[in-house]
Amino acid sequence: MSMKAVVFRGPFDIRVEQKPRPRIQDDTDAIIRVTLAGICGSELHMYRGHQQTATGHIMGHEFVGIVEETGKDVALFHPGDEIVSIFSPVCLKCWFCLQGLTNRCVNGVAFGTSLLNGGQAEYVRVPFADGTLQHVPAKLDRRLLIMMSDIFPTGYYGAQRAIEGLRTQYNSRLTSFNLKTANEKLHESTVVILGCGPVGICAIAAARSEGIKTVFAIDSVKDRLDEAEQFGAIPLMLGEDDINARVLEATDNRGADAVVEVVGNKPALRSAFDLLRPCGVLSSVGFHQGELPFTGLECYQKNITVNFGRVPVRTVFEDALQCLTENQEKMQSYITHELPLDDAAKGYDIFEQRKARKVILNISK
Amino acid sequence: MSMKAVVFRGPFDIRVEQKPRPRIQDDTDAIIRVTLAGICGSELHMYRGHQQTATGHIMGHEFVGIVEETGKDVALFHPGDEIVSIFSPVCLKCWFCLQGLTNRCVNGVAFGTSLLNGGQAEYVRVPFADGTLQHVPAKLDRRLLIMMSDIFPTGYYGAQRAIEGLRTQYNSRLTSFNLKTANEKLHESTVVILGCGPVGICAIAAARSEGIKTVFAIDSVKDRLDEAEQFGAIPLMLGEDDINARVLEATDNRGADAVVEVVGNKPALRSAFDLLRPCGVLSSVGFHQGELPFTGLECYQKNITVNFGRVPVRTVFEDALQCLTENQEKMQSYITHELPLDDAAKGYDIFEQRKARKVILNISK
Repeated sequence: MSMKAVVFRGPFDIRVEQKPRPRIQDDTDAIIRVTLAGICGSELHMYRGHQQTATGHIMGHEFVGIVEETGKDVALFHPGDEIVSIFSPVCLKCWFCLQGLTNRCVNGVAFGTSLLNGGQAEYVRVPFADGTLQHVPAKLDRRLLIMMSDIFPTGYYGAQRAIEGLRTQYNSRLTSFNLKTANEKLHESTVVILGCGPVGICAIAAARSEGIKTVFAIDSVKDRLDEAEQFGAIPLMLGEDDINARVLEATDNRGADAVVEVVGNKPALRSAFDLLRPCGVLSSVGFHQGELPFTGLECYQKNITVNFGRVPVRTVFEDALQCLTENQEKMQSYITHELPLDDAAKGYDIFEQRKARKVILNISK
Repeated sequence: MSMKAVVFRGPFDIRVEQKPRPRIQDDTDAIIRVTLAGICGSELHMYRGHQQTATGHIMGHEFVGIVEETGKDVALFHPGDEIVSIFSPVCLKCWFCLQGLTNRCVNGVAFGTSLLNGGQAEYVRVPFADGTLQHVPAKLDRRLLIMMSDIFPTGYYGAQRAIEGLRTQYNSRLTSFNLKTANEKLHESTVVILGCGPVGICAIAAARSEGIKTVFAIDSVKDRLDEAEQFGAIPLMLGEDDINARVLEATDNRGADAVVEVVGNKPALRSAFDLLRPCGVLSSVGFHQGELPFTGLECYQKNITVNFGRVPVRTVFEDALQCLTENQEKMQSYITHELPLDDAAKGYDIFEQRKARKVILNISK
C-alpha cells in the first residue's frame, strides 16, 4: 500500500510523492495515521542546504494523529488513541532515559532525517512508542498541540534552564547577605530572550509564567516583536534600539541575570554573552555549528554558567503542556498558516521567507 | 617607617626590599602585621612572565596575621585580633556582595598586583577590612589557615559547583523515572579532578567530604597523585594510564558525570570536555586566557553545563573551613616548605620548579 508523503529532494526542493506505507518493524513500534504535521524552523537548516544530508527521506518531526496499529510490546497505546509524538524516539530503557535525560537517549534519532522517516505523511512508524508518544489532553486545540512535539518544550526548557541556574545561585549557601527569598530575587530578575521565532515566544511565555517581571525580547522582525509584546515582553529591535543600553538601564548597569539564546548563530551567542551580568546564566538552545564566540578569559572573568543543547521533551512534557494550556488563547494567533499536505512545498517556501509565524499541514484534508 | 617586603622586579626576579610601612588611607582600612604568607600557583603566571604586568609592587595574596590598626569605620575587627585575609577585597556593599557573589565585588582588586600591594611583607593595608578579613578559628593550624585565603575555597568551590550542577539535574522535575534520591545518585556519581596541585587536592577533599564515592585524580606529577590517593581519589597518570578508558570503564561507557578543571590551559579544558558524559557538568576554576577548545556543535550535542571563574571566598568561607578542619590531619603534609621572608626568591624558585607542594613564608621568624 502506498501513501502521500513530503519528500526532501535537495535544498529548496520539497515534493509530495507516493511512498510505501510504513509497517511495524519492531515489537515496540506503533504506526500513526497523521492528522496534523508542523514545519519546524530546525528543518530550514536542511531546506536551505546549510546542513549536508542525504535526500529521499520523508520530512517532519512535529506531528499529531491516531494510533493505527501497535507492536506487541507497546503497553500504553492502543489503536484509536489520539497522540502527539516527540521529535525523536525515547526508549525509556537506557541509562539516560532512566535519569530523565531523554534528550540524550542512546536510541534517539530524529524523525524526518535519512535515519528515520518523518511525520509529514499520511502514516508514520514510531519506534519505542511507549516513550515517544504522549496521550493528548482533552482541552487543547489540536493545532496548538503540534507545538508540543518540539518548539514549546524547547522554549520552555530554554527558559527553565535559565531559571534553574538563577534559582541555584539565589538558593545557594553562597548567597547569605540578602534577606530576600530565592523566589523574590527570581521575580526581580531581568531575563533576555534572544530570538523571537516560535521557540523564543514559547520561552517568553514560560519565563513570564514563572513570574519573571522583566523579560526583554530581541529580534529583527517587527511581527515577531509584536507577538513577544503580547506575551508581556519588552520588545527590542535589532539594528534600531540600543539594546545594550536598554538592558543596562534596567539593571543598574549590571547586565541581564540570564539570557536565553534560541537563534543558533555566532552573533546571537556573542550578544547573549555581552548582555549578561557577571555570574549570569546563559541558556542556549540554539543549534550551533561553529566555534564559540567568547574566550576562556572572558568566561573566567565573567564567572558565567552556560547550558547548551536540546530539550528532554518526555520529562518536561507535563510542565510545558500546563504552561502552553495557560497561554493557549494568546498562542492561537501563532498558527498563521494551515495548508493541505499537497501544498507542503509552498508551506516551506513561505516559512523560509519568514512570511508565516508557524505553518502546519492538515493531512486529514 | 619602613619594612621588609617581597617585590616583583620582573619575570624570575623576586627581591626582598625595604618599602614604606603602609598606613590607613580609608576609614574602612585595616593594617595587618603579617605572620605567615603563602606563595600561590596563580602568582606563577606573573613570575614566569606569562601575564604582562607592571613591576615594583609587593607580592602575595595569601596571608594571616594580627590586626595592628583599624580605620574608624571598621566594626568587626580590633587591634590584636588574629585574622586571615581573602585574596581580594570584599566591600560587602555593592549589589554583587549583597547577593553573595563576592567574587565579582565591584571594588575587588587582587592583592599582590600593581593595583594593590600584597601580603608578602611585614605589614599590609587591607581595604574594606570588615568584608575582606575573617576571624581565625581556635582549632586550626595557622600554617593550614593560609590555605583559606584562596586555594582551599577555590578547590572547594570547584567541587561544589560540580556537585550543585549534578544535584540540580538529579533533583529536577526533568528526572522522573528514577526512584533513587538525588543524594543517592550524587554519591554514585563519578567525578574527575583534572589537576592535582594544591587547588586540586582541596577539590578532591571537598568532593570526598560530600560523599562522592568515585573520584578520579589526573596529573603528571607522581608526588601529587600520591597525595590525591591519600584523600581517597583514584590516581591516573597523564601519558601513562589510559585515562579515557579508565573513566569509561567506571561509568558503563558513559563518561564522567562531572569534571572539575583546575589547571587553566587548553589541553586540560579539552580533556575535561572529552571525559564528560552527555548532559555532564564541567566546573572550571582554572585561569584561562585563550580560545575555548570546544565548538558550539560539540556543546550542543553533549548538552553540557559549564561553570567558569573564581570563587566567592567570603560566602563559602564557613563551609570550606569546616571541610578543611575535617581534613586537617591529612593536609599537614601539604605544607612542605616554610621559609623566612628573606628567602622568598628561593621559595618562588622551588615552587616554580614543582619541587614543593606548598611554600609559606614565616614573617615572624
